[in-house]
Amino acid sequence: MNLNLIDKYQDTLHKAITALHKRTFFAYYPENPSSEIYGENADQEGREKYKTFLNNRFEELLQQEPVKWVGQEESPYEQQPLGVKYPYFEIETLINRAEEAFHQWRKVSASDRAALLVESLEHVRSRFFEIAYATMHTTGQAYMMSFQASGPHAADRALEAVAAGYEELGRFPEATEWEKPMGKYNLKLNKSWKAVPKGVALVIGCATFPTWNTVPGMFASLVTGNPVIIKPHPKAVLPIAIVIAEVQKVLAAHGLNPSICQLAVDADDHLITKELAEHTKVKLIDYTGSTEFGNYIESLKGKTVFTEKTGVNSIILDSMPDLDKVLQNLAFSLTLYSGQMCTAPQNFFVPETGVQVGGETVPYEQVVQKLADAVTGLVNNPKAGPHILGAIQNPATTERVKGAASVKGKEILSSCDFSNPIFANARTCTPVIYEVDATEKESYSRELFGPIALIIKTKDTNQSIEIAKEMALNYGAISCGAYTTDADVKEKIMDEMGLAATPVSFNLTGGLYVNQNASFSDFHVTGGNPAGNASFTNPEFVIKRFTWVGFREPVGS
Amino acid sequence: MNLNLIDKYQDTLHKAITALHKRTFFAYYPENPSSEIYGENADQEGREKYKTFLNNRFEELLQQEPVKWVGQEESPYEQQPLGVKYPYFEIETLINRAEEAFHQWRKVSASDRAALLVESLEHVRSRFFEIAYATMHTTGQAYMMSFQASGPHAADRALEAVAAGYEELGRFPEATEWEKPMGKYNLKLNKSWKAVPKGVALVIGCATFPTWNTVPGMFASLVTGNPVIIKPHPKAVLPIAIVIAEVQKVLAAHGLNPSICQLAVDADDHLITKELAEHTKVKLIDYTGSTEFGNYIESLKGKTVFTEKTGVNSIILDSMPDLDKVLQNLAFSLTLYSGQMCTAPQNFFVPETGVQVGGETVPYEQVVQKLADAVTGLVNNPKAGPHILGAIQNPATTERVKGAASVKGKEILSSCDFSNPIFANARTCTPVIYEVDATEKESYSRELFGPIALIIKTKDTNQSIEIAKEMALNYGAISCGAYTTDADVKEKIMDEMGLAATPVSFNLTGGLYVNQNASFSDFHVTGGNPAGNASFTNPEFVIKRFTWVGFREPVGS
Repeated sequence: MNLNLIDKYQDTLHKAITALHKRTFFAYYPENPSSEIYGENADQEGREKYKTFLNNRFEELLQQEPVKWVGQEESPYEQQPLGVKYPYFEIETLINRAEEAFHQWRKVSASDRAALLVESLEHVRSRFFEIAYATMHTTGQAYMMSFQASGPHAADRALEAVAAGYEELGRFPEATEWEKPMGKYNLKLNKSWKAVPKGVALVIGCATFPTWNTVPGMFASLVTGNPVIIKPHPKAVLPIAIVIAEVQKVLAAHGLNPSICQLAVDADDHLITKELAEHTKVKLIDYTGSTEFGNYIESLKGKTVFTEKTGVNSIILDSMPDLDKVLQNLAFSLTLYSGQMCTAPQNFFVPETGVQVGGETVPYEQVVQKLADAVTGLVNNPKAGPHILGAIQNPATTERVKGAASVKGKEILSSCDFSNPIFANARTCTPVIYEVDATEKESYSRELFGPIALIIKTKDTNQSIEIAKEMALNYGAISCGAYTTDADVKEKIMDEMGLAATPVSFNLTGGLYVNQNASFSDFHVTGGNPAGNASFTNPEFVIKRFTWVGFREPVGS
Repeated sequence: MNLNLIDKYQDTLHKAITALHKRTFFAYYPENPSSEIYGENADQEGREKYKTFLNNRFEELLQQEPVKWVGQEESPYEQQPLGVKYPYFEIETLINRAEEAFHQWRKVSASDRAALLVESLEHVRSRFFEIAYATMHTTGQAYMMSFQASGPHAADRALEAVAAGYEELGRFPEATEWEKPMGKYNLKLNKSWKAVPKGVALVIGCATFPTWNTVPGMFASLVTGNPVIIKPHPKAVLPIAIVIAEVQKVLAAHGLNPSICQLAVDADDHLITKELAEHTKVKLIDYTGSTEFGNYIESLKGKTVFTEKTGVNSIILDSMPDLDKVLQNLAFSLTLYSGQMCTAPQNFFVPETGVQVGGETVPYEQVVQKLADAVTGLVNNPKAGPHILGAIQNPATTERVKGAASVKGKEILSSCDFSNPIFANARTCTPVIYEVDATEKESYSRELFGPIALIIKTKDTNQSIEIAKEMALNYGAISCGAYTTDADVKEKIMDEMGLAATPVSFNLTGGLYVNQNASFSDFHVTGGNPAGNASFTNPEFVIKRFTWVGFREPVGS
């Protein structure tokens, strides 16, 4: 099947592929929600559109004959149900529809698939503001993060996956003549190759980043010819449902089966993820979420699996020209979305002998107190605090923060109480900080998801590096921040954390944060430690979704 | 560390990378063992050198202080021990030496690693004839196959893996400046990336193709910076020991630790493979061999694994212009190395209504008898038979052939007796053929390794395709041959076998055989069905051996 759509999007794809190779700055979708870019009333209209979804059926999907309508989302800002209802289907219905769609989709040319997906993203662009409000009121992210992460940043990650897949699908020739000299004659074969997609793909979303963490796997499976079933977290469906609806509309507009991309929601009384994941027809799984469930997903036989689980992220403090700038930066990273980012730092390693600041030693105790002060200052700044903190997605996170007092260490900041000035009923919690000795390994050898920071007192920077590496190797790590003015220490950190497959951000201050990963430049999750086996978007992320199969025949036969 | 060796081999690597992309014919090492190419006395000298190894210690390895000297090889042609003894080491010694070497090898630049490996292959080239005799007398391959498969074809597959790895290692920039416009100012980061090797690699060899199946994983792990421990099959050590010795000499000549590439042999009284494979320090495993052990290897946690297991290869007979040419071709494929190639056909699907030959129907019974006659004719041709058949590597294979009489079907050819005119004591066996009805699925739903062919009587070609696909999906397949003059049937076979990730050779006659896979052009094993998860050499085969890790720092900090 050839729809000849590629011309329209060739330039966009070419730019995206070039960016992927150069790894210089590239963003296709503007992250600034300004009215000049997105239209004067875009925000207002998006907010109103979002409100129309509340306490209603989500009727936009091209998925017919649901068994029932279900929904269990609630706003962390209002602690009230959203009341949005989604169509629920039996597993076999979803799988059968995906299988049927597979045999159409796999025959659509790679360039048409890529073009259709870019077209879908262009449609999604017009819905960034609705998606932003849907994200706020499911994840608890603040407005700006909701817009950027679920809108332009997610769309860029999706475009990145489409570009990477499109490039790999064109890596080898469709056909070639193979001619082997045999002395007196030549043996000649016509050869051709097909990139055969693996089959039905499942994407399992998480509650904190419902589009950003879902679209890379979704678009990577789609561009490589696999039909996709998206099973979002039951508490964060709406943002990705809007994306799926737009993909389905573009498919249908081009005469294709919208079941190429389906939404699958959990029933109100039971979760369907395991049943879907274990289905023999499901060949590919993308998963974001807890380590425990991720390990189960990785253990399934006969599946190609991409996981992003959890990690224990470290900050190594050694030496710096300006301690205050460093601690302001770290306070922000810790406070941003109340520590609910997978890249948020948790373990802060500080030598008991203190840190070197412009040739002077600042004692350990002072570093600890200054970090606590920086966090308190940021949280209590009414112009910043609420907009950085957002709300807590899951009540279990608040419980975890309260339980953190059981850490065998000293309380530095222990009350997480906070009132959001706009949403009086918001579920909120500011960062808590505990001080732990390096010997109390049990306390810090696990992810404490949420706004929880542990300051770990080490003998020296060598021990800080050693433990940070050990944590990453044993429990995974998605980010690491390090502050040093010493070239040898920097080299050692790069070497040791590199062996633990953990990216390192050095000496970040000002507007650059360890939590942030840029599409087309930063690989997200390296795939090399227990934090997950996937990496957005390195070539493996797309290559594993299809198989090269060769065909050959003597010339002239 | 920069040894600046790349200039010398840049051209070779560039040619190899280009060939990998174009998939047109390319061979770097001549497959013709002629004296014009390899030197007047190369064969004679190789044979004599081989004899010096017999009943002696293999002293060429740069592996000091063995615990003892062991060896259990025996010649399938003479059914006598070779008496070659290899140094045996404790597992911990091998692992510790590999770990130590790792930290040197990973710091050698990718271009130097690639150059050192090409240099090693150039040294191996001077030993192709010794390796040929070593291969004959361990695997039972005939002379020509021993030379080609273990010498030039293996070296080409190794070069292919080095080229693929070298290309991937250079795919992303070492460093770049990332500059993000923020309106009034730009955020600037210096970014750099490292391809961090995964760690100690293990390569587990098989008894039938001791270099061809070992060098792709070995050279792929080495070029990507991982130290390698090669554990050959205890009955086929010498061919790969010579290769390892040459790699070690090149490493040592450049001041590098020869433990970057170690030979590990089983003790005479126990096998060490599991102990090595399960060692926590072993991160990468390449395996060729049985499905049962391969599944165990794939089940190991925390390892990146590449397997080539077994498959049930099919031939689909539908229509052709000349039946005799087809059956001569198939008789050769079946007889070659007595069916001990992983690409050898086993299940021959013939419709009960016969096949179409130039517009005429040739009845089923006649097709069956003609295939039997073609095999008998080839085997009994004294100029061809012994040189095609070779010898049987493993006594269990002979037993399996004898046991094949238990197949629920009709005997077509059942005696495998054969006398090799040169080696009176050779373990030999000619192909046996049984006829089985399509309903007797149990009989043909498994690999019958060795010279065993089953003719499966189907209702029609549609059923032939359906069962061939089912076999490939359930039990794996590495090759498929199909004969049809009907474009629709061809398209259907491509589509269905493509979905089973099985390459198909159409209408091969003359000097082209379904068993053969060409380096730089044919992917060997697709990785997409149970025959194995590896594919020589698609990008995944090298990418999974290292992790991209990024580092970033504000410009000017």
